[in-house]
Amino acid sequence: MKSVIVLSILTTASLMASPLTKDAKNAGLLPIPASKTALLKLIDNPKNHITDAKVKLGKKLYLDPRLSRSGLISCNTCHNVMEGGDDGVGAATGHMWRHNPHHLNSPTVYNAVFFGSQFWDGRAKDLEEQAQGPTLAHPEMAATKEHIVAVVKSMPEYVKEFKQAYGDNVKITFAKVTDTIASFERTLVTPAPFDAFMNGYKEAMTPKQKEGLKTFIQIGCASCHNGVALGGEMGAFNVTATYKYMSTGDFKGDKNGMVKVPTLRNITETAPYFHNGMIWNLKDAIKEMGRIQLGTKISDKQAESIETFLGALTGKKPHMMMPMLPASTATTPKPDLN
Amino acid sequence: MKSVIVLSILTTASLMASPLTKDAKNAGLLPIPASKTALLKLIDNPKNHITDAKVKLGKKLYLDPRLSRSGLISCNTCHNVMEGGDDGVGAATGHMWRHNPHHLNSPTVYNAVFFGSQFWDGRAKDLEEQAQGPTLAHPEMAATKEHIVAVVKSMPEYVKEFKQAYGDNVKITFAKVTDTIASFERTLVTPAPFDAFMNGYKEAMTPKQKEGLKTFIQIGCASCHNGVALGGEMGAFNVTATYKYMSTGDFKGDKNGMVKVPTLRNITETAPYFHNGMIWNLKDAIKEMGRIQLGTKISDKQAESIETFLGALTGKKPHMMMPMLPASTATTPKPDLN
Repeated sequence: MKSVIVLSILTTASLMASPLTKDAKNAGLLPIPASKTALLKLIDNPKNHITDAKVKLGKKLYLDPRLSRSGLISCNTCHNVMEGGDDGVGAATGHMWRHNPHHLNSPTVYNAVFFGSQFWDGRAKDLEEQAQGPTLAHPEMAATKEHIVAVVKSMPEYVKEFKQAYGDNVKITFAKVTDTIASFERTLVTPAPFDAFMNGYKEAMTPKQKEGLKTFIQIGCASCHNGVALGGEMGAFNVTATYKYMSTGDFKGDKNGMVKVPTLRNITETAPYFHNGMIWNLKDAIKEMGRIQLGTKISDKQAESIETFLGALTGKKPHMMMPMLPASTATTPKPDLN
Repeated sequence: MKSVIVLSILTTASLMASPLTKDAKNAGLLPIPASKTALLKLIDNPKNHITDAKVKLGKKLYLDPRLSRSGLISCNTCHNVMEGGDDGVGAATGHMWRHNPHHLNSPTVYNAVFFGSQFWDGRAKDLEEQAQGPTLAHPEMAATKEHIVAVVKSMPEYVKEFKQAYGDNVKITFAKVTDTIASFERTLVTPAPFDAFMNGYKEAMTPKQKEGLKTFIQIGCASCHNGVALGGEMGAFNVTATYKYMSTGDFKGDKNGMVKVPTLRNITETAPYFHNGMIWNLKDAIKEMGRIQLGTKISDKQAESIETFLGALTGKKPHMMMPMLPASTATTPKPDLN
């Protein structure tokens, strides 16, 4: 009986909100909701509701390299769900080994559902729209809409699964394929110790991580890195000659010079950093951001403290079975390596 | 009680060897053993015993693109376990989008453990030796031994798993890495209806598949496509000007002009066919083999019958979880895209 009481007291204590979570909320930081219903509401698209059938099919399409012109590049090539959701190289590299023309780095797919917009210049409003980009882009998958539809329609298993997902009268179009991929991507969220902490479990973060969170807020990192993604909205990137890595690539942001703030979730797994992937070391990245974005000299000690906090944003990835992709048939378009 | 008796009679009948299985065995065709012990004995390497720890680690290494020079190409890129165990393109394509210099097609990794030797010219005796090839080859992963060892050693999770697999005093060498990958590959066997049939379950193959097996034996296909892999040994490939696809690539076999006979398991999933991947249609491939290897004109009807039998070789792939690869660290060698 005694142990039950002790446990009960501990649990109550654990659930009491600490002042730090209040400070974090005031600074605009939000957790991934603990409630499944709240989470589903947050990640769903009312125009393309998430269903099990779409997610199952979307996962296959996401992993299927035959959607590309060459038959060798899938969404997963640059946004590898086994590797932190990105590719770990500087500039995205696709069809015929061509690099992104602006030397842009592949962002992680994990938690991208929480972003206000997609791509570094925010030109796509959501994941459904985003998925239409790299599939057709020439330095990436280099396919055509017709190729993708023909590939999918050539395999009875895919056709069957589209019917299961959208009904027997489904018209398999390019948009239907990319919508389905987006449904899968919407489920790729990674709850981390930070979320448990913000949701009331005080011990979910270590004392040093909590110190780091304080430093993060005090220095002003949360002025751009906020919301559930700790990023994901458009921000004014200080593109000046003082950014010493700016010489790599010619990206200047959107028409207003704005650049999407990358998420800090799983940042320990997604080096290299910045839109042009020119910084490999997280501590260096933190200091450089202080210098060029906040006009602040972040000390080594502060940078280490922030880095420690960022470790609390490394989340649990969904456990996924490796799907078996349907076999090509006589009508499947042949890959074109050129 | 009556139904139990009926069931019992059926089961006994099902387990009676049919004359066709005898013919097949006489022709040299062997099933994947139904007994787990017999199978383990067949796939194990006495010098590199299969263990759960090695297989678990080997799967990660097999899927990890950071073993390559670019950080973008894994074993799975050309031998995709989600896609029939190969890449579905004509010539293997690797680092910097270079194609295999002899226009050689990537063979499937599934059931490769049953091959007498590895590579189209049989130059590697087993999977352990094979794995040392593409990791270093320049048109493939283009790494160095030092790069691979440095990548693995840079991640504490990998080091820990090597200790779990080989003991605390393990020396992580290039050979240890490739041995571990091979242990994983040894488990990639795909029991098919053909195996159930050969192991005594008469109904496992359809009447048409059985007819096809008869045709397969009668025409002489089993003279090269035999053993558990229905292939996998060196055979005299008739490399003459009459092989109309020979103009693609300059592969002439090993020093004796011998070429490894590809497995027919999962052949319905591994187009394109032949060492140079120049035939996409299975029926065409069957007829072409009759013409150039057996000097026989295989009729459309016979080819269709054989193709129907080959469908009984499409096996059940292992259900696998998608592993999470350990995060790179400050000491992980940086990818080199050039």
